[in-house]
Amino acid sequence: MLKYSVFLGNVGSCFDRYCTEYAKPFSLCELFERAASIKKLDAVDLVMTWDMMNQKDEIKAQLKKTGLNVGSLAVDTFANPIYQKGSLSSTDAKVRNQSLADAKRVIDFAEEIGCPIVTLWPGQDGYDYIFAADYIKERQLFADGLKELCKYNENIIITVEYKLKEPRTHSYLSTVGSTLLMMEKIGLPNLGVALDYGHAALGYETAAEAVAMCKMYGDRLKHIHINDNYRLWDDDMIVGTVHTLEYLEFFYWLKKTGYNGYLVIDQFPYREDGRDAVSESAEWLDVLQKAAERINEEEITEVLAKRDGVASSRYMRKLLFGGME
Amino acid sequence: MLKYSVFLGNVGSCFDRYCTEYAKPFSLCELFERAASIKKLDAVDLVMTWDMMNQKDEIKAQLKKTGLNVGSLAVDTFANPIYQKGSLSSTDAKVRNQSLADAKRVIDFAEEIGCPIVTLWPGQDGYDYIFAADYIKERQLFADGLKELCKYNENIIITVEYKLKEPRTHSYLSTVGSTLLMMEKIGLPNLGVALDYGHAALGYETAAEAVAMCKMYGDRLKHIHINDNYRLWDDDMIVGTVHTLEYLEFFYWLKKTGYNGYLVIDQFPYREDGRDAVSESAEWLDVLQKAAERINEEEITEVLAKRDGVASSRYMRKLLFGGME
Amino acid sequence: MLKYSVFLGNVGSCFDRYCTEYAKPFSLCELFERAASIKKLDAVDLVMTWDMMNQKDEIKAQLKKTGLNVGSLAVDTFANPIYQKGSLSSTDAKVRNQSLADAKRVIDFAEEIGCPIVTLWPGQDGYDYIFAADYIKERQLFADGLKELCKYNENIIITVEYKLKEPRTHSYLSTVGSTLLMMEKIGLPNLGVALDYGHAALGYETAAEAVAMCKMYGDRLKHIHINDNYRLWDDDMIVGTVHTLEYLEFFYWLKKTGYNGYLVIDQFPYREDGRDAVSESAEWLDVLQKAAERINEEEITEVLAKRDGVASSRYMRKLLFGGME
Amino acid sequence: MLKYSVFLGNVGSCFDRYCTEYAKPFSLCELFERAASIKKLDAVDLVMTWDMMNQKDEIKAQLKKTGLNVGSLAVDTFANPIYQKGSLSSTDAKVRNQSLADAKRVIDFAEEIGCPIVTLWPGQDGYDYIFAADYIKERQLFADGLKELCKYNENIIITVEYKLKEPRTHSYLSTVGSTLLMMEKIGLPNLGVALDYGHAALGYETAAEAVAMCKMYGDRLKHIHINDNYRLWDDDMIVGTVHTLEYLEFFYWLKKTGYNGYLVIDQFPYREDGRDAVSESAEWLDVLQKAAERINEEEITEVLAKRDGVASSRYMRKLLFGGME
Repeated sequence: MLKYSVFLGNVGSCFDRYCTEYAKPFSLCELFERAASIKKLDAVDLVMTWDMMNQKDEIKAQLKKTGLNVGSLAVDTFANPIYQKGSLSSTDAKVRNQSLADAKRVIDFAEEIGCPIVTLWPGQDGYDYIFAADYIKERQLFADGLKELCKYNENIIITVEYKLKEPRTHSYLSTVGSTLLMMEKIGLPNLGVALDYGHAALGYETAAEAVAMCKMYGDRLKHIHINDNYRLWDDDMIVGTVHTLEYLEFFYWLKKTGYNGYLVIDQFPYREDGRDAVSESAEWLDVLQKAAERINEEEITEVLAKRDGVASSRYMRKLLFGGME
Repeated sequence: MLKYSVFLGNVGSCFDRYCTEYAKPFSLCELFERAASIKKLDAVDLVMTWDMMNQKDEIKAQLKKTGLNVGSLAVDTFANPIYQKGSLSSTDAKVRNQSLADAKRVIDFAEEIGCPIVTLWPGQDGYDYIFAADYIKERQLFADGLKELCKYNENIIITVEYKLKEPRTHSYLSTVGSTLLMMEKIGLPNLGVALDYGHAALGYETAAEAVAMCKMYGDRLKHIHINDNYRLWDDDMIVGTVHTLEYLEFFYWLKKTGYNGYLVIDQFPYREDGRDAVSESAEWLDVLQKAAERINEEEITEVLAKRDGVASSRYMRKLLFGGME
Repeated sequence: MLKYSVFLGNVGSCFDRYCTEYAKPFSLCELFERAASIKKLDAVDLVMTWDMMNQKDEIKAQLKKTGLNVGSLAVDTFANPIYQKGSLSSTDAKVRNQSLADAKRVIDFAEEIGCPIVTLWPGQDGYDYIFAADYIKERQLFADGLKELCKYNENIIITVEYKLKEPRTHSYLSTVGSTLLMMEKIGLPNLGVALDYGHAALGYETAAEAVAMCKMYGDRLKHIHINDNYRLWDDDMIVGTVHTLEYLEFFYWLKKTGYNGYLVIDQFPYREDGRDAVSESAEWLDVLQKAAERINEEEITEVLAKRDGVASSRYMRKLLFGGME
Repeated sequence: MLKYSVFLGNVGSCFDRYCTEYAKPFSLCELFERAASIKKLDAVDLVMTWDMMNQKDEIKAQLKKTGLNVGSLAVDTFANPIYQKGSLSSTDAKVRNQSLADAKRVIDFAEEIGCPIVTLWPGQDGYDYIFAADYIKERQLFADGLKELCKYNENIIITVEYKLKEPRTHSYLSTVGSTLLMMEKIGLPNLGVALDYGHAALGYETAAEAVAMCKMYGDRLKHIHINDNYRLWDDDMIVGTVHTLEYLEFFYWLKKTGYNGYLVIDQFPYREDGRDAVSESAEWLDVLQKAAERINEEEITEVLAKRDGVASSRYMRKLLFGGME
């Protein structure tokens, strides 16, 4: 069974583009306490905003106090308005340099606290309108920046989280294919994919196939964000409330390809209690992982070899409702 | 438990716009035998193409021989190329009159064999390009035709199957709302909705909510087509291979609103054996209906009253994995 | 040529679920000045948040000073967190009553300032998860509330703005069909549709067809919001930067059906200057309306009668590039 | 101005999964005559089905008679039912070997007639259901087959046409990113992308950005299919009837990156006359290319450098309606 982490802010409160405060905000200490109260969690992932970078000692104290590990540190390239038109891909040298500097400071802190992974989610690196970007120049700037960060500290794995869109209407790092393509060209070993289940679904990717592709092209799957959605938008819902069977296939392929990192809960419970919504996802992850463990290697190999929808259907029904027929 | 029917052709073979023959075709007699071999089926639904209209005696003989009932008869307003630009909505009086005449002949045959429902799927009634239709005139022609058919024989229920698109890029009867709206204006009692689960999903409708709306606006849910898809297209897959939880909610609302018609399996098993694919769907319908029967009225009323994603999530997990926690 | 209004906040700054401040906020006075500086605008539409309700005198002063008219007043049923799980459809009597009271206060202010339209955008009236709502009860509550508001002041038109989703994953007032259906049942004359071009596109509606449907079913088109998007999400972009030909058909049908209200610019220019982005939309509306005026009634009647994609294509090309061939 | 080709069958008639014959079929000779009657066409592209492979002499005679060039030859890996579960990716050695043999015969014929490009559209290489494929094994088989074909004749460029889905619910060669990734690993120079404008739109790709990516990663854009759609499905409509501005950006990037191959019209005019629909697309390509030529390098460089939606919007309006303001 894979272990769970959570983005710390997820146990707190949310806002969206209409409503600035669905619920009251929590202090850092409260957030840690709320996370720690969920016994199924092993770790937290931290978005290192400017504010968080100024509380490094407090963070270390809270980690020690709660006994929580750190799944990864994320560089803030999306909430800081300076990056609203791009971070590593920015054609404004000053902005781009600051994003590199910010990332390096996060890498340093990761090393300091023994966290092996730093995550980049280039949510603002893209474009909204056509006739608004030199696609080649900006993609190249991003790739060059990524290379520089990988070389900065070879002990830290830099993972990149792709997403088709939002907050930009189009992201540069949009699909598993385009992300692995950039990594293939850079060719460094400490570069990996942070696969967000919901982002895969949003891009009409089968999550299990995305896992397989990461394996094939450099064994680059290093981090996983987990949540659920209705496929057409990154709804960031409680895990398992929409998809069921696809999760079972996903967990099977994670095992088959040897993934052993965290499953990081990453959701936006606008109208739910954040702590309870995270706890729910952890419960779902338990039952879904257990159900996936019913998959017998010999049996599934036989099913996959058939390449027949009827055989697949029968197998899925057995996995889910085995005892009912 | 609701009973199952199947579109007779579903146990046969398919074609698409690229490949004319994924498998060899079957004779009418073979199709009936294949359907009859699936013990969980109670009935067949028949698309009354020109060819079928010429085999009425053979059809009656096969029904008698196999003991299968008839769920509904569908008027062929989509495979006959004369209707390629519309049937009841056609601005070509000759075409429109023929569609009315064709439908009346099907209504007559329905009465003759004791089938209470005639289905219209106005798949060709719509448009592909903008600047290609007078939306008001054509919608009105469709509504007028529908009224005429309802009045033609008040003992037969005319059900209309809506769908967002395909084969036209845009259909007039596109969503549950626009379909009920037209019916509300016509105001006749023997007019009903044929709800296709996959069409609801394609239109970003929650199937259970579509059921509720049919109840609210005239109690018009009279027939159900069933299959599965990935939401963005009418993939017409084996039931239950994509959606799980949404089916449970759907069956709950069918029960709550008193639906007691057929669940008509309606799929396109291009690369699977048609008979086996239908049999699979019947198996899924059994387990999904059984799982939905675990829903306790008191308990769900309490859950729905909470209007809280966490409570809903917990309830869904219990429904599906009750024994595992 | 139709006149333009703008949601006052549009000339200001935006936030989204990741970044709280893409640009510095503006005062009410500054917003009015910025709007007034765009000469092509005739009016503003105002979202009557709690804060705005407390500045009624200031609003009246600004209107007088700038000479701007008011297109409509919108009730705040989406930014106030009390309505996060629904306003008129809320099963919490206290919340629902407050939403009615809030709406009535806005209606009173509309009458006071001579604004003929009050808009409801029930963005929070819907659900995120399945198994989380009693669809019939909540839809009925909404309809009852709407009726009460229409009866409260028969001189004010209540317009309802439908949208497939967001901020909820599913809205009750989702499509033009379901909205007109509810209105058909309520049957009051001072009830109308506020059609948002982008919401129509998001729901795979052809905007021109939505206009035609509003005409057919009660002549209910009373207000229009305008913006652009990539069809899969309500991107709220500058008008005309994505769609071109569909706007021409839209303006043609607006004229044909006798719409004479405002075109209210409603966009989210996260990374652009709000004032300039609104000014851009006004410029596009001018050129698109002028291009649509090239449509000759005799000629288009002939084209539509053909129901032929080739004829439609030729006509569209002529409209757009007439002088180039 | 780029030259136009057309898939020969496009000037004929179509069928879909409901209707086998929207119009009467044409003979090979008639198809060539119809294509030749469209003066704006320079070439035809030919799908080398079994039937066509048996008419090589007739094809050569028709080419000579009409003076049409050949844009590319496409291997039939999608209409022949033997490939219904995959061609080069097939786990059935017999099927896979036949697909390689078929492709080599097409390569031989291409060399014989002096056609520089052979196209593979792996439409059946993918899967419909989850739990139905070993993604790694099948993707590897496809890549190995592709490599074998490239090495078979280094004078012929093998282009691969990607598409998100259809006829399978999921294709292996799904996006520009995953296609370039496979090519990057294979690393052979006579391997290229056949970019279908509609497939890019279907996958939420900006076509111009896909062109840019092909340039960056191996300069692999070697062939272009052209048509239009509503983004959510491969509607294969007449060029320019949906998208306008995106075509202008697309043509600009084609010029900027030095593309000098054909624009191959590839559409499914179910209800239109095929010849006339192709002729329409050629007319649109003329006006759209001319409009794109208005783009001044200095001016656009300045606009792109701004990275500002307002500047982009203004520029697009100028391109389209320059003379109207």
